[in-house]
Formats: sequence, C-alpha cells, structure tokens
Amino acid sequence: METTNIPGYAYGQVNRSPVTLAELELLKQTVLFSAADVAALAQAGQVLAPQTDAILDVWYGFVGAHPYLLRYFSLHGQPDGAYLARVRARFGQWIIDLCTKPYDQAWLDYQHEIGLRHTTAKKNLTDGAQAEPLIHLRYLTTFIVPLTATIKPFLQNGGSSTDEVEAMHAAWFKAVTLTATLWSYPYVKEGQF
Amino acid sequence: METTNIPGYAYGQVNRSPVTLAELELLKQTVLFSAADVAALAQAGQVLAPQTDAILDVWYGFVGAHPYLLRYFSLHGQPDGAYLARVRARFGQWIIDLCTKPYDQAWLDYQHEIGLRHTTAKKNLTDGAQAEPLIHLRYLTTFIVPLTATIKPFLQNGGSSTDEVEAMHAAWFKAVTLTATLWSYPYVKEGQF
Repeated sequence: METTNIPGYAYGQVNRSPVTLAELELLKQTVLFSAADVAALAQAGQVLAPQTDAILDVWYGFVGAHPYLLRYFSLHGQPDGAYLARVRARFGQWIIDLCTKPYDQAWLDYQHEIGLRHTTAKKNLTDGAQAEPLIHLRYLTTFIVPLTATIKPFLQNGGSSTDEVEAMHAAWFKAVTLTATLWSYPYVKEGQF
Repeated sequence: METTNIPGYAYGQVNRSPVTLAELELLKQTVLFSAADVAALAQAGQVLAPQTDAILDVWYGFVGAHPYLLRYFSLHGQPDGAYLARVRARFGQWIIDLCTKPYDQAWLDYQHEIGLRHTTAKKNLTDGAQAEPLIHLRYLTTFIVPLTATIKPFLQNGGSSTDEVEAMHAAWFKAVTLTATLWSYPYVKEGQF
C-alpha cells in the first residue's frame, strides 16, 4: 500500500506522545505481549493486507447499522460522506501498521495523534469534516470487542493452521487493547492516565 | 458464597451511576452482547464458582510478580497485606456477579462504585488501606487482556464441550470489556465519557 497517498496520514510527522517508551513497555507486559506476538502480527499483516477492504466493509457496516455510532460521522443527523471515506483509508492503513510497524517512538507518537483525533482537540480538523466534535471514550473501549471478534474469519482466510490463527488472533487482541488504551490518554483527567 | 460477609461489598447499597440504562444498552450492543451471552455467562458462573480461589491465585500471582502493579496495593514500597486480602474477597465475588447478576440498575450502580474505588475519590477508604491513592486508568484497560486470557483454562475445567467453552469465553470477554469501560467513568473529563 502506498501510504504517502492517504490524506491526513501523518505517521512519523506528529508531536511526541506524553506516554514514554518505558511506560509503553509496562503496558506491553500487562497485555502479555511477547516476541511471539510480534511474529504472529507480522503473519497477520500478510494475511489481512489483501482483505483490508472486506474488513472495512464489515466495520463500516457495523457503524452504519447503528445510528448511535454513525452520529460521530454526522452533524444534525447528516453523515459526512467525504469524512467517512477519508477515515476509511486511514483505518485500513491502521490495520497494516498495527501488524507490521515496530512499536517504537514513532508508533507511540502516532497512537497519541490518533487519540487526539477522536477528541475535541483534533476531531474533524484533519478532514474538514462536518460532524460531532467528539467520539465518547466509552466507544473506544467497547470497540475492542467488535474489532477483535470480527477479525477472526479474515485470519482464517489465509491458509494458516488452526494454531497459527489462534496465535494471530491472540496477538491482534493484545495489540488492539494496547492501542485503545493509548488512545484514551487525551480523555483522562491530568495525572490519572 | 455468602456475600454479606465480604467486608466492603456493598452491592445494592451504593449511589446511582451517572451512566443510564439506555446508555448501557448501547454499550451492550457495541460489545455484541446478546441473550446467548447471558446464558453462556450463567454456565460460566457455575463452572468458575468452585475455582474462584485458584483463579485469584493466578491473578494475584500476576500482580505480585510485577512491581509496577503491586505498587497500587503498597505505600513507599510496602504492600498492605490486609488490603490485598480484603480486595481479594471482593474480586472473587466480582467473578460470580459478572456471570450471574442481571445487568440492571443495581449492577450498573455497583460498576460505578467499583470505578470510584480505583480513583482518588474512594481508593483505600473502604479498607482503611495504606496504599497509592489511585490506580492509573491505563491498567484498567490493559487488564482486559490478562483477565480474558487467563480465564480460558478454568472454563475448560468444567466438562463443557469445546463450543460451550468458546461461547463462555466470548461472553466473558464482552462482560469484562463492558465493566472496564464503566469503571473508566470517574477518570474521564466531564462530558467525554
């Protein structure tokens, strides 16, 4: 995928995260993240990359079927189609990045940027969107479940063994939880993250 | 389990949650929670109840093996044994309640109380503990993974079929994510939960 052509995708060009690499290391330990997960995610990246559009169809179908979710892409009940399309391209890149990027300073910084783009600090700005000014935190956390549950059939499409699918799925769950946690930073009262 | 003998366990006797039942219903939809999950959790409750102590041994072993987690039960590096013991009894009851209680107003209210007891608002008060005044939110969210991953062997101990174990595990994951979400409320800036 040619990442530089994705509007608003600014990986490697954003401000530093307030979370340190040392703190990230402890979060990785807490979600039981190991070298085996890095390898399983690399394999998942290969399996998922050609299916990105189909995955996004499922996720956008889920959002579109639930007005209380679609509202975050809407203003006064009117969805912003251009906004939905621009976010979709970055969401697809997020799948690949989650599986293949090293979880280093640049990755950490970009997780914070993604978090900010869900809040009043930066939502809609990147895309000039006409939409609600904030996605409530409760949906970032609860989305861990649909993002984890719906990925399994796609992991099973790659011709991998059952054990490999289980390993990829477990690693994906850890990675999604890690990012949802990092994305929550801008929502939290000072000193309580 | 005789719940009334658990120190600090105040189910049904706490203040009203700021989250409404209508909002809870949308969170349940977001984690794909269905009537089948209620049934699977009821079965899980029967499987897990006699294993509560063994489960808590695993979870306390995890916390005890990580100084950055044990510190939340400690002050100036000194763990508070009485606090650890009192929390353990309630944590065991939480396993049972998560599986067997209806997710009604009383349940919703108690999730908020549990959230508050992780923050400066109420931490240590219930138990007269000598410990850090706050558990950082990032560990509530990341704990979704170890609480979900470590429960599976215990679900497998009940003589249930593979499909039943998968259903119980999926329902447990949804329930844990739902509670972690509700527990985050007191940490979040006004209007952003």
